[in-house]
Amino acid sequence: MNRRPKVVILGAGYGGMMTATRLQKANMHREAEIVLVNKHNYHYQTTWLHEPAAGTMHHDRTRMKISDVIDTNKIQFIKDGVQRIDSEHQKVHLDGGELDYDYLVIGLGSEPETFGIPGVSQHAFSIRSVNSVRLIREHIEYMFANYNRQDEKQEDLLTFVVAGAGFTGIEFVGELSERIPELCHEYDIAREKVKIYSVEAAPSALPGFDEELVEYAMNLLESRGVEFKISTPIKEVQEGKVLLENGDEIKSQTIVWTTGVRGNPVVEKSGFDAMRGRVKVEKDMRAPGHDNIFIFGDCALIINEEINRPYPPTAQIAIQQAYTVSNNLKKLIKGEENLEEFKPDIKGTVASLGGKEAIGVIGDRKLYGNSASAMKKIIDNRYLYLLGGMPLVLKKGKLNLF
Amino acid sequence: MNRRPKVVILGAGYGGMMTATRLQKANMHREAEIVLVNKHNYHYQTTWLHEPAAGTMHHDRTRMKISDVIDTNKIQFIKDGVQRIDSEHQKVHLDGGELDYDYLVIGLGSEPETFGIPGVSQHAFSIRSVNSVRLIREHIEYMFANYNRQDEKQEDLLTFVVAGAGFTGIEFVGELSERIPELCHEYDIAREKVKIYSVEAAPSALPGFDEELVEYAMNLLESRGVEFKISTPIKEVQEGKVLLENGDEIKSQTIVWTTGVRGNPVVEKSGFDAMRGRVKVEKDMRAPGHDNIFIFGDCALIINEEINRPYPPTAQIAIQQAYTVSNNLKKLIKGEENLEEFKPDIKGTVASLGGKEAIGVIGDRKLYGNSASAMKKIIDNRYLYLLGGMPLVLKKGKLNLF
Repeated sequence: MNRRPKVVILGAGYGGMMTATRLQKANMHREAEIVLVNKHNYHYQTTWLHEPAAGTMHHDRTRMKISDVIDTNKIQFIKDGVQRIDSEHQKVHLDGGELDYDYLVIGLGSEPETFGIPGVSQHAFSIRSVNSVRLIREHIEYMFANYNRQDEKQEDLLTFVVAGAGFTGIEFVGELSERIPELCHEYDIAREKVKIYSVEAAPSALPGFDEELVEYAMNLLESRGVEFKISTPIKEVQEGKVLLENGDEIKSQTIVWTTGVRGNPVVEKSGFDAMRGRVKVEKDMRAPGHDNIFIFGDCALIINEEINRPYPPTAQIAIQQAYTVSNNLKKLIKGEENLEEFKPDIKGTVASLGGKEAIGVIGDRKLYGNSASAMKKIIDNRYLYLLGGMPLVLKKGKLNLF
Repeated sequence: MNRRPKVVILGAGYGGMMTATRLQKANMHREAEIVLVNKHNYHYQTTWLHEPAAGTMHHDRTRMKISDVIDTNKIQFIKDGVQRIDSEHQKVHLDGGELDYDYLVIGLGSEPETFGIPGVSQHAFSIRSVNSVRLIREHIEYMFANYNRQDEKQEDLLTFVVAGAGFTGIEFVGELSERIPELCHEYDIAREKVKIYSVEAAPSALPGFDEELVEYAMNLLESRGVEFKISTPIKEVQEGKVLLENGDEIKSQTIVWTTGVRGNPVVEKSGFDAMRGRVKVEKDMRAPGHDNIFIFGDCALIINEEINRPYPPTAQIAIQQAYTVSNNLKKLIKGEENLEEFKPDIKGTVASLGGKEAIGVIGDRKLYGNSASAMKKIIDNRYLYLLGGMPLVLKKGKLNLF
């Protein structure tokens, strides 16, 4: 090519931010025009959002201005929403215009998976963005303030239902159960008035996790007053209540939906062949049939051949994918053809349970309590380090390890 | 009398607390049984409530546990609501029982005056208690969080209507206009999206206040973005809007009612002759025709003979009345008959405008800005000093004068 090729990165999530950072560090802006597009002018750590949702951390600690991390003299930043990708004409339709590209990176994240259960999108909250979790925090506080002011007390104001006892659901319940005593103090309400239900359709909380650790987590959360309803599918969500398949109902003004995610609908809308919004990508992270389009994170599907099931869409994998994608982009820009294959290297998984509690598996080792909690914070800090080095860790990191 | 007489004080507001404190200091519990009855186990400073309502001060700073100020070995405290006074049988009917008395002190405070305007009690907030202002604070934050999450923005979420530009209304508007920039920052909202209306039926804000000071206040508040609608009576409050007499309407999800107060309805319900819930008391603060019942504060009416109008129901006057009432109680208990007459001594009036701003008149002097704001804090601290001495000032006082 005579002109510099144009690389467009859609989405400033884990994958998009890490790709942009890697390209910038490798000085690729000298050889290519690089554009990052994101709906907000900030990046946030999705995996931390259960904390500001419960109000145990301020949301500003989970986000950073993109221009504080990316040098926008080297990488152009466009704040806009993505409507559709036109791969035939190599264009992206944004809310406010169009953008053409030579190479495209799709890291547009996810939306909540409702499994077609009626009423979820109308009546339930989701833990998906700074805006959505700030609303959950405020909503919870508003329920407490309202209860206090009522002459005839409405108990469903103090009943909290978390649908889904997977990773996010359990982490949120952990934070919420830590926050409730503070809220009771703040609003002059007796702790025993407050109910937290964790409702899960599968026969276990944290399906797929080590059984011993799951038991530890459930015992701990029960000791903080959480009531589990396991093997309990939800039939419908209505205003102010959850209807269960078993015929029971739970009255609640606060229903938080955490039953997993599907890929961003833009992917399917743009004609990519996708399952639940996720495209089964090639080994080099490109979309099948598209030599110049990479897809990663929540929008990509990769099968773990050992168990013949997809890898879960985690931050850990998205970050690793961004390394492969940025390496492959470098090669393509330089005209090389031997693209790298993505090989996930799962170092472990840790779920926080609020306060100084967590559970996890690192390699073959099981971790409980304080040490798991410290490990979780180390993982969170490591991401900040990869993104913005020690300054970013000091600014936004979880420094109080124990 | 052979047995010790029983003094019952209803309400732990400014008057009730000060009376109890004065009697305790004079060791009157040795000669009389003294009982204080209050709905909550805490006392709060009503005149500070505009601050926690706007969220510029935590509500705990405006309240104190009654048992932290009153020695409950000397004065019995009963946490209960008052339903009715039966003066014929010298009994008080509480929510949870009955109480007889020899001497009764009524300091039951006020409720909002709605002037019969439809919809006020259903659709408007009021600044009257810790519970009510905590709800206002949470409601405001909830509106911001909701706006942020909306795809189609509903501007009435960010429109705040304060009905009444009297003392409380102006003080609340002052705090709110100080808080809005913080809220805009917290919720990622541009300041110009937020509207604050101060609506007043009378031909001036702060009716009765010095004109020059009123102009200072209005200019200051307008510079912070407050829009005044003076000489603008409200016809009706409906869900989500205020209808004005001039045919206009203002859409708002947050309508705060501050058009003055009337005496507690218990007074009229108990057969006392009252105007807007206030009993025109004798010069010695006793209810006409009742030798053993004192009434003060918001439930009492005293005419300022110089201008032939009632004194406004302020904390300053309630505190001074409590001195007279406690002195007269002492005399009655000791069998003396020359009761003292109440003579108000208005030292001045200061209205805070948020931040370091205020206006006021002390004696003949007009005060503006910083010096008025410092004077307001000195007045607030002085009350704490009278109630609980220097320890209470240090614990709850406004120590940052400038």
